[in-house]
Amino acid sequence: MTVSPLAPAQFPDLPAVAGVEAAIGRAGFYKHERPDLLLLRFPEGARAAGVFTTNAVGSAPTDQCQHALAAGNGAVRGLLVNAGCANAFTGPPGDAACQRSLLAAARKLDADPALMLAASTGVIGVVLDDAKIAAALPAMQLAPIQWRAAAEAIMTTDTFAKAAGATCVIGDAAVSIAGIAKGSGMIAPNMATMLAFVFTDAALPASVLKASLSEANEDSFNAITVDGDRSTNDCVLLVATAQTPTPAIGAADDPRLAAFRDALKRVLANLAIQIVRDGEGATKFVAVRVDGAVSDKSAKTIARTICESPLVKTAIAGEDANWGRIVAALGRADEPIVRARIAVRFGALWAAKNGMVAPEYDEAAMSAYMKRAELDIGVTVGDGPGSALMYTCDLTKRYVEINGDYRS
Amino acid sequence: MTVSPLAPAQFPDLPAVAGVEAAIGRAGFYKHERPDLLLLRFPEGARAAGVFTTNAVGSAPTDQCQHALAAGNGAVRGLLVNAGCANAFTGPPGDAACQRSLLAAARKLDADPALMLAASTGVIGVVLDDAKIAAALPAMQLAPIQWRAAAEAIMTTDTFAKAAGATCVIGDAAVSIAGIAKGSGMIAPNMATMLAFVFTDAALPASVLKASLSEANEDSFNAITVDGDRSTNDCVLLVATAQTPTPAIGAADDPRLAAFRDALKRVLANLAIQIVRDGEGATKFVAVRVDGAVSDKSAKTIARTICESPLVKTAIAGEDANWGRIVAALGRADEPIVRARIAVRFGALWAAKNGMVAPEYDEAAMSAYMKRAELDIGVTVGDGPGSALMYTCDLTKRYVEINGDYRS
Repeated sequence: MTVSPLAPAQFPDLPAVAGVEAAIGRAGFYKHERPDLLLLRFPEGARAAGVFTTNAVGSAPTDQCQHALAAGNGAVRGLLVNAGCANAFTGPPGDAACQRSLLAAARKLDADPALMLAASTGVIGVVLDDAKIAAALPAMQLAPIQWRAAAEAIMTTDTFAKAAGATCVIGDAAVSIAGIAKGSGMIAPNMATMLAFVFTDAALPASVLKASLSEANEDSFNAITVDGDRSTNDCVLLVATAQTPTPAIGAADDPRLAAFRDALKRVLANLAIQIVRDGEGATKFVAVRVDGAVSDKSAKTIARTICESPLVKTAIAGEDANWGRIVAALGRADEPIVRARIAVRFGALWAAKNGMVAPEYDEAAMSAYMKRAELDIGVTVGDGPGSALMYTCDLTKRYVEINGDYRS
Repeated sequence: MTVSPLAPAQFPDLPAVAGVEAAIGRAGFYKHERPDLLLLRFPEGARAAGVFTTNAVGSAPTDQCQHALAAGNGAVRGLLVNAGCANAFTGPPGDAACQRSLLAAARKLDADPALMLAASTGVIGVVLDDAKIAAALPAMQLAPIQWRAAAEAIMTTDTFAKAAGATCVIGDAAVSIAGIAKGSGMIAPNMATMLAFVFTDAALPASVLKASLSEANEDSFNAITVDGDRSTNDCVLLVATAQTPTPAIGAADDPRLAAFRDALKRVLANLAIQIVRDGEGATKFVAVRVDGAVSDKSAKTIARTICESPLVKTAIAGEDANWGRIVAALGRADEPIVRARIAVRFGALWAAKNGMVAPEYDEAAMSAYMKRAELDIGVTVGDGPGSALMYTCDLTKRYVEINGDYRS
C-alpha cells in the first residue's frame, strides 16, 4: 500500500487532552498482523454528542450509540472501536454481539456498561465475533492516548493516519481539541465507513456539544464526497472530558463559546479534508465552490452533483479542463438556475461567463492549470444568495482497480 | 474502436415506414471522414411528439423542438440531426445558428421552416457552425430511409448502430413502428447525448402520440443509466406519417390503441437497452429489479441509486458478488425501507433475506454467476406495492480511460 500522493507531509503535533486514556489491541479481524481494536476511557463527568449516518440500513454500533447517548443524556465513560467488521445488516444477532462486546469492555474499564459507546468499520453483513474482542481485552494496557497509534488502530484501507487539533479559550480557560479519523472511500473495498472521534478537555453539557458538533459537521464531513456511497456506519463523536474548569455554558450560541466553535470547525474540516486526500486512487484534490444559487442548500446540492459526476471526475483525472461537463452536471442537479448567468472558472481562469464560453477562454492556460495536484473550481449558477463549498477527488483507473479487484 | 462485447449479434430487420425520406451528408464536424448529418422529410399531415432532457441547462435544439411542437400543435415536415456539435450552452448565438440551419434545410425540403425540428449531439459550449450545414445540403439526396445508414449517421462514440422495430394493428389497420437511437455514455467524451427517433405510418394526433410516447419512455429511456450524467440534449421524438389510414383515435386510452402502445413500448425498451449495451467500457449488462417499496416511484429511486453506485458498478466489473454494497446503496437512497425485510438475490441465488445474510448463501455459486455477461439482480426493500426495473452496465477502467484520456 503506497501512501496517497495527496497526503500531508507529516503527522500533526496535537495538544494533549486531559482525561482521554487509550488501549490498543488486536482481535484478529484481519488476516495480517495489525491492531484492529481501540478502547478509550473517559473520566466521571465526561459528556458526548454524535452525528451518525443517514443511511437507512444503519448498523448495530450506530444504533447503539444513538440509544446510549439519548438514554444517558450524553454521559459517557468509554468507547470501543473495531476495524475489520462493520457489524452492519446483521439484525438482532449483530445487536446482541455489540452489547456483549461493550459489556466486556466496561468490565475492563470498571465502568457502567450503559455509558459505553461502540463504533465499527469493515465488512458489511458479518455479525461481530465478540469472543475475539473479549479474548483480546485482557492484554490491552490503558495509558494517556497517543494520537498516532490511536489513529493507526482504526485504519482500514487508509494509506495514512489522520489527526488534527487546535487550542482555544472558553472565557478565560485555555482548552484543547484533538481528534482522529479514518476513511478513504465513503465505503472502502467492501469495508465501511468514515469514523471520527474528537476530544476536548472542556466541561460542556451534551446539548452544547451536540449543537456545536452539528454545526461544524455541516461544512466538514457533510461537505466531502469521494464516491457518494454514504456508509452504513458513518459516525462522528465529540467527547468533553471536563478536566479543565470552564465557565458554565448553557447554550451553543453563548458568545463565550465562539472561539471553541471556530476551533472545532477547523479541526473537523481538517480531518474531513484528509479523508478526501486519501480518496481511493485519488491523484487530485478538488474544491468546488458554487455561488449564486437560490439558497445554501440548493448550492450544496449543485456542488454535490458536480463533485459526484463520473464525467467531471474522470476529466479531472485526465487533466482535461472539460468545463462542458461541469455545466452539464449543474444542469441535472434539479435545482433552480439562471442559464444566462452561468459561469465556470478554474482557479482564476474563466472558462464560461454569462451562459456561454468566456471571451477570454484560453485552452493552453487551462491545460497547464489542470496539471496541478490541487484544483479550485468555481461555478456561478444565478444571482441568488446561496453558496456552498465542497471537496472531492478525481476518479481514476486505480479507484476501479481497488474496488473491482478486491476479492479476486 | 472495437464493438461492445454486449452488442446484438446483428442489425435488426425493420419494417418499412411509408412517408419517411432521408438524406445523409457530411458537414465536417469531425476531423475524420464520416457522415455527421441526417435530414428527414415527412409528408403533409405528419404529426410528432417529443420528450426532452430535464437538464436545466438544455440546448438550442431541444428548446427549438419544444417551441416548434407547441406552436404547430405537433405538425412536422422535417428533422435535421447533426453529430459533432451539441449547440448546448451557446446562448442567443446558438439559437440563431440553429434557426439558420433549419431555414436552409426547409428550403431544400420545400417545407415551412416553422415545421422543422432539430437535434444535435457533440461538444458542449461550441456554437453550431451552420455554414458547414448549408454547404453540405445541396449534395444530399433524399430517398426512402435506410435504417442502418441513418442510425450510423447519428453515432458519436457509439460502437454499433442501434435500431428496433415492430408491427401491430390499430383497429383493422396494420401499422409499422421503427426507430433509431444513439448514445453510449449519458454524455459521451465531451459529446452529448442520447437521441432516439421513432416513426410510424399510423395517422394519430399529436396529443395521442405525446401520451403514448411519455408512457413508453418511462420504462425505457427513463429506466436506463450508464453514468447518471443526464445530457443537455437528450431527445426522443415520435413521428406519425399518416400514410396508413387508421381509425380516428382521440385519446391514448382508446382500447383500439392498446396494441400500438405495447408495440411502441417494446421498440423504445429495445432501443434503450441497446444504449446500455453500448455503455462506455461496459463488459456486463445488469438488470436491477426492486420490489416491496412504498411506491413505484420510490422503487425507481432505489433502483437508480443502486445502478449508479460506483462501488456496486466496480464490484460487478470485478465479478464480485458484493451484496453488502447493494445493501449500503439502497440504504442511502433516502426512501422508506423496512430493514428487517431487506433481501438481495443474484439470479436465483439469495445473498440476503430478512435483513441479514441468507441461510443458503453460497459464495462459490455466487462467484460463478458473476462471471456471466448478463446479470439479474433482485432487491426487496419492504412489504409495499412499489416495484421498478432498471438497466445499467458495469464501471470499468476502460470507462475511466475513455472519459479521462479524451483530449490528451
